[in-house]
Amino acid sequence: MKITKPTLIVDEKKAAENIGKMMEKISLSGNVRFRPHFKTHQSTRIGKLFRDAGITAITVSSVSMAAFFAGNGWNDITIAVLVNPLEIGAMNELLARKINLNLLVDSTEMVNFLEERLEYPVHLWIKIDTGYHRTGIEWNRENEILRVAEAINDASKLQLSGILTHSGHSYHAVSTAHIKTVYGETVSRMNAVRNFLEPRMKGSGEVEVSIGDTPTCSMVDRFDGAAEVRPGNFVYYDVMQLMLGVCLEENIAAAAVCPVIARYPQRNELVIYGGAVHLSKEFVTNRDGNKVFGLIALPDPTFSSWGRSIENTFVAALSQEHGIIKTTADFLKKVKVGDLLAVLPVHSCLTANLLGERG
Amino acid sequence: MKITKPTLIVDEKKAAENIGKMMEKISLSGNVRFRPHFKTHQSTRIGKLFRDAGITAITVSSVSMAAFFAGNGWNDITIAVLVNPLEIGAMNELLARKINLNLLVDSTEMVNFLEERLEYPVHLWIKIDTGYHRTGIEWNRENEILRVAEAINDASKLQLSGILTHSGHSYHAVSTAHIKTVYGETVSRMNAVRNFLEPRMKGSGEVEVSIGDTPTCSMVDRFDGAAEVRPGNFVYYDVMQLMLGVCLEENIAAAAVCPVIARYPQRNELVIYGGAVHLSKEFVTNRDGNKVFGLIALPDPTFSSWGRSIENTFVAALSQEHGIIKTTADFLKKVKVGDLLAVLPVHSCLTANLLGERG
Repeated sequence: MKITKPTLIVDEKKAAENIGKMMEKISLSGNVRFRPHFKTHQSTRIGKLFRDAGITAITVSSVSMAAFFAGNGWNDITIAVLVNPLEIGAMNELLARKINLNLLVDSTEMVNFLEERLEYPVHLWIKIDTGYHRTGIEWNRENEILRVAEAINDASKLQLSGILTHSGHSYHAVSTAHIKTVYGETVSRMNAVRNFLEPRMKGSGEVEVSIGDTPTCSMVDRFDGAAEVRPGNFVYYDVMQLMLGVCLEENIAAAAVCPVIARYPQRNELVIYGGAVHLSKEFVTNRDGNKVFGLIALPDPTFSSWGRSIENTFVAALSQEHGIIKTTADFLKKVKVGDLLAVLPVHSCLTANLLGERG
Repeated sequence: MKITKPTLIVDEKKAAENIGKMMEKISLSGNVRFRPHFKTHQSTRIGKLFRDAGITAITVSSVSMAAFFAGNGWNDITIAVLVNPLEIGAMNELLARKINLNLLVDSTEMVNFLEERLEYPVHLWIKIDTGYHRTGIEWNRENEILRVAEAINDASKLQLSGILTHSGHSYHAVSTAHIKTVYGETVSRMNAVRNFLEPRMKGSGEVEVSIGDTPTCSMVDRFDGAAEVRPGNFVYYDVMQLMLGVCLEENIAAAAVCPVIARYPQRNELVIYGGAVHLSKEFVTNRDGNKVFGLIALPDPTFSSWGRSIENTFVAALSQEHGIIKTTADFLKKVKVGDLLAVLPVHSCLTANLLGERG
């Protein structure tokens, strides 16, 4: 592998370990389905790691991503974003491939629209808002949820699978204890909805509970109260998860390798070819109040891994194509223009989306 | 044009007006070359607007972007990022097309490297740091600059064009008066360097001064003291420039059209399919202290323009594929799921990079 410009590299051993650890925890929880989110990697190669581990059901975040993975042999796919009615044509094309497609709704209007316009049967999940306040019906608006469930039951092409939530507010948690609290609250709210719904759905079977976000799924030991979990980021983790206390640095499995194009000993800064269009403008704030757009490590010669992150060294600013690294005199001395550094990304999903080519 | 998912649209009339206004100002400044930065749009179509206006010299921010525009008939190109030595092969391939290529250096090491490894002659600019502190030799380190200039003069394949700076700190200005101050300071510092350098460069002709960033180039009336200007963002402008006071809303010439996928009257929020992977995570902070990831307007039916931005309505949060719009009860009433909204981007360069396909 020859790297001349910003390039995503993956430590596949670490990724496989991250998958294995999550699968083991799920298997300990009894009858829980693992439907990992593939938006993090969007890669057939990482998809294969999951397939080799026995995974058959996946989550994606767009119709085009579903089409990509359907073309790659995956046939049980949840598009975990509310239905975009303008893409009805693309959804019908996808269904023509005879895959098991799961869609999300949170209104009777969208249920009616799908019943009218879909050309094939699909499974529907009702999106529930358990506290993140992005999308979904708030968990305590039980009658509104029931109306959507009844509309699905009344439709001929639509099959209710269950209720689904994403506790994205776990990303804003202030401690790992707080993350566990979010998990407990999520499961208890989802089960309250399920317990309300199930007896009222005459003869339409079980109402499954689907949950999943990397912080909570990484912090708990068991997935009691869930039929399905859908974390995605955990396959790579990143600096954001590290700062949340959700992973260790050695669990981070993706990095952006970038060439050094300048060094400024006067201000202990290095500049890399690697900017907002490669890493994304996502940042975390460190203890000193500095914005951090990535940590820095030295890549292995084969680019299959990298060393420990360098102390007091981080990407402090990004413009379109440049990254400015604040570092120490000591590290700066060891680096020359033309060297390659590994940037551990703040948000691996966004970096992989920018640098990865689907394939 | 049928739009079903996040799509960049350009108001070409406004873009042409933005180009025309900048060109008129440049022509009033006498013998100043306009070398617009094409990283903002990366589009052959917008390139044609510039070509129709008489532009022949352009700026880009990567070797691959240079190759793209060289393939599109542009043959006088500056890559306005310090040379990445790892891409020497790609630079030689580019030069084999017989284009007039301008590269940036700020060290004798890189001059020597290019002299040794380039297979064709190129023009070099010495990158000067006039206060932004990203790359370049600080303007007052005159002897260091002279050493680089002499190394270029001593080389057989390298021709010194002049000195080049990017006053990116104008983006952090607190007022339009401050932006004009940055311009004055930039020009005076660059001319101090030139006045030091020119008499010391025996018989190698003029040392040109190249400057250019959208805030300063938009705010001044004339470009005295510069041989070349290189603004790029001004072709589209964006919400960041609007908040800086550098443009009016009616000058913004690019928008991301996104489908509405949910509406929540309880909290006056709309959710669009359109997230960090479409708009970028760049934000500005409004007067109320809210993060703003974009303003909202209604697109015309032909998607060739859009109306005034909607009052008290903005993209308040982004995840990978979702945008949350905070709005008023009044506007929310008029919008339904499946409608398309135009998002005026915070940083049009990044949004165009994400949504545009080069071509």
